[in-house]
Amino acid sequence: MTTIASTTRTQVAIVGGGPAGLMVSHLLHLAGIDSVVIDNRAVRTIETTHRAGILERDSVRLLVDSGLDRVLRDGHRHEGISLRFRGLSHRIDFENLAGASCWLYPQTDIFIDLHRARTADGADLRFGITDTEVVDILNAPRVRYTDATGHRHEIAADLVVGADGSRSICRSLIPGVTQYFRGYPYAWFGVLVQAPPSAPELIYSRSRDGFALISQRTESVQRMYFQCDPSENPDEWSDDRIWNELQTRLAGEDGFRLKEGPVIERTVLPFRSFVQTPMRHGRLVLAGDAAHTVPPTGAKGLNLALADVRLLADTIQQALTKNDLTVLEHYTARALDRVWKAQHFSYWMTTMLHRAEDSSEFDEQRQLGELTTLVASTAGSTYLAEGYTGWPGR
Amino acid sequence: MTTIASTTRTQVAIVGGGPAGLMVSHLLHLAGIDSVVIDNRAVRTIETTHRAGILERDSVRLLVDSGLDRVLRDGHRHEGISLRFRGLSHRIDFENLAGASCWLYPQTDIFIDLHRARTADGADLRFGITDTEVVDILNAPRVRYTDATGHRHEIAADLVVGADGSRSICRSLIPGVTQYFRGYPYAWFGVLVQAPPSAPELIYSRSRDGFALISQRTESVQRMYFQCDPSENPDEWSDDRIWNELQTRLAGEDGFRLKEGPVIERTVLPFRSFVQTPMRHGRLVLAGDAAHTVPPTGAKGLNLALADVRLLADTIQQALTKNDLTVLEHYTARALDRVWKAQHFSYWMTTMLHRAEDSSEFDEQRQLGELTTLVASTAGSTYLAEGYTGWPGR
Repeated sequence: MTTIASTTRTQVAIVGGGPAGLMVSHLLHLAGIDSVVIDNRAVRTIETTHRAGILERDSVRLLVDSGLDRVLRDGHRHEGISLRFRGLSHRIDFENLAGASCWLYPQTDIFIDLHRARTADGADLRFGITDTEVVDILNAPRVRYTDATGHRHEIAADLVVGADGSRSICRSLIPGVTQYFRGYPYAWFGVLVQAPPSAPELIYSRSRDGFALISQRTESVQRMYFQCDPSENPDEWSDDRIWNELQTRLAGEDGFRLKEGPVIERTVLPFRSFVQTPMRHGRLVLAGDAAHTVPPTGAKGLNLALADVRLLADTIQQALTKNDLTVLEHYTARALDRVWKAQHFSYWMTTMLHRAEDSSEFDEQRQLGELTTLVASTAGSTYLAEGYTGWPGR
Repeated sequence: MTTIASTTRTQVAIVGGGPAGLMVSHLLHLAGIDSVVIDNRAVRTIETTHRAGILERDSVRLLVDSGLDRVLRDGHRHEGISLRFRGLSHRIDFENLAGASCWLYPQTDIFIDLHRARTADGADLRFGITDTEVVDILNAPRVRYTDATGHRHEIAADLVVGADGSRSICRSLIPGVTQYFRGYPYAWFGVLVQAPPSAPELIYSRSRDGFALISQRTESVQRMYFQCDPSENPDEWSDDRIWNELQTRLAGEDGFRLKEGPVIERTVLPFRSFVQTPMRHGRLVLAGDAAHTVPPTGAKGLNLALADVRLLADTIQQALTKNDLTVLEHYTARALDRVWKAQHFSYWMTTMLHRAEDSSEFDEQRQLGELTTLVASTAGSTYLAEGYTGWPGR
């Protein structure tokens, strides 16, 4: 066995220093609970990996209420989205329909805010580590890892939070789990482009050629996606080919055109649904992508992680204050209630707007029948607005 | 060539004497337009073949406004339905949510009312005929058939309406059509039972064992269905086995039990979606099942037929009054707008409540996630209520 160079004692060891892990640490700190966070990645890597960008109302509340209010200055409040089909856009007015908005604020900015706040508060954050191992989660949990100089360290904690993303190692420590999985026959081709915004809000576009999503980032950089084959190689796509594909999918009788510019990043995003239950065993609890992933269409991934974290911070506080773990028993059921709503919402948005390889002409027309009914119905549009902004009363 | 024993001249020849065909004839009569109706079947056969039983608000209006108001006395107004899952029922209150109700009034009763009214008005109705043939639909349409004594007759008309159901012969006379088709991997096992009602309104039940629908007919006869394999042989099902299957699918923690009694009819109902476009060529127009069929889950089949008929009677009146067929050109688009909404609604109700043979545990949980979200949302429940009662503003 390797010698342990140091042992640190803390209340909560957090595996994963992305937005979920850092937010748990931040909320626990505000509640007077110590934690140590470890992550394989370098801070710079996390800061520059483009991910989600849409926050539900309650995700923004969580940030602001915990003192992270840069979102209100640098983020963009979106009071609706457009659904585009048959070459015309139909606005879904979230604020009027559901009394809620969402915010465009990239995940990288949330990470930056959290990292800055945690650092300012003197948090123990250890990035760029390797060989993470979690042991004895039933009795006296310890998290071990190797630092950049090759030394092995140990963190002893009352509880361990597994916020280590979709390739979680913590997930595998929970015995007797049920894993739910669903694949989709498509992926998203995501690009970051240097161009002015083409629209003030997100456009979810359905066309014969497949789905496309026009999103925004800043005044000079935009985020866009289009449905593609999962095996697509991004390097085979020139700027011209990408713009041609996007323009074709957005074209319509209203003459709408995207504002073009250099493509500065191109990636193919996987598309799958996953849920693991339970999300807790002994003194280990999971949060976010470690326990569930959704396809990106409903913009639910980051929001679900933050919802887990809000619930988890509260649960951990109760457990440690009372020195009684029984409160952890309800965590899975409470978290999964929202997760399955979000899984359905993501599935709904996906199947309503994408074209499956094997979809028939009947399916095409039925899809248009659904979209036509939905945008003509205040109730239907409100139902979508509720789901998108995060459901009322939570 | 066979000798033609008689030729009748009329304005509109109607192929098919079910509710759609008779209603066209009835509405045209009220507008002062003559028609002749033919049908392969005997009146007694149509009167005793159990089919749909739920009328949308506007279907009831159409009956009542055209003088057929027995529905208001002998029908039952249903102000809602229940969605049942995880062993509990959740009422969708149509009247409160969408300001509309539907009516339980069997298709056989609509036929009886129409047949009585048309007979009283001296209509020319020819049932029990064979070998129907429609010729020269572009210029001078004639409908020919053979009567029970073997004589061949001809009806010459300005227009022909093909209301001859899902095995329509008129449909095949329209050239260059597009046919949209979707199969489903299940069927419905439908029973008529001698028992008192088990509930005041319809119960749409989703369970691990599959879908079931509890409907009503009279104080002493009820209609019930459960999802089954399309190859199921009804003769292999004893009363006990049927009741056991139904009770299992309805069982729940609220202790709900169906009231049992002898099964007096058992059939396996096919399950498919079909649309043909266009619905008109020259002087031939289609209505109802001849042009489109829906799975029974949304109770849309008869209602779509009546919506076609309402539109068609108006269109024919304009065409014949002005002696100008161009108004017929808009019929297909206007009818199909509603048809595709209904196709989606039927698909939605079907996939939300049925269990597919190949459905995964993920799909099961997602379905429950949808149902949970829907019944908790006033907007979602209203969207369903609008669809079920026939969409507002039409």
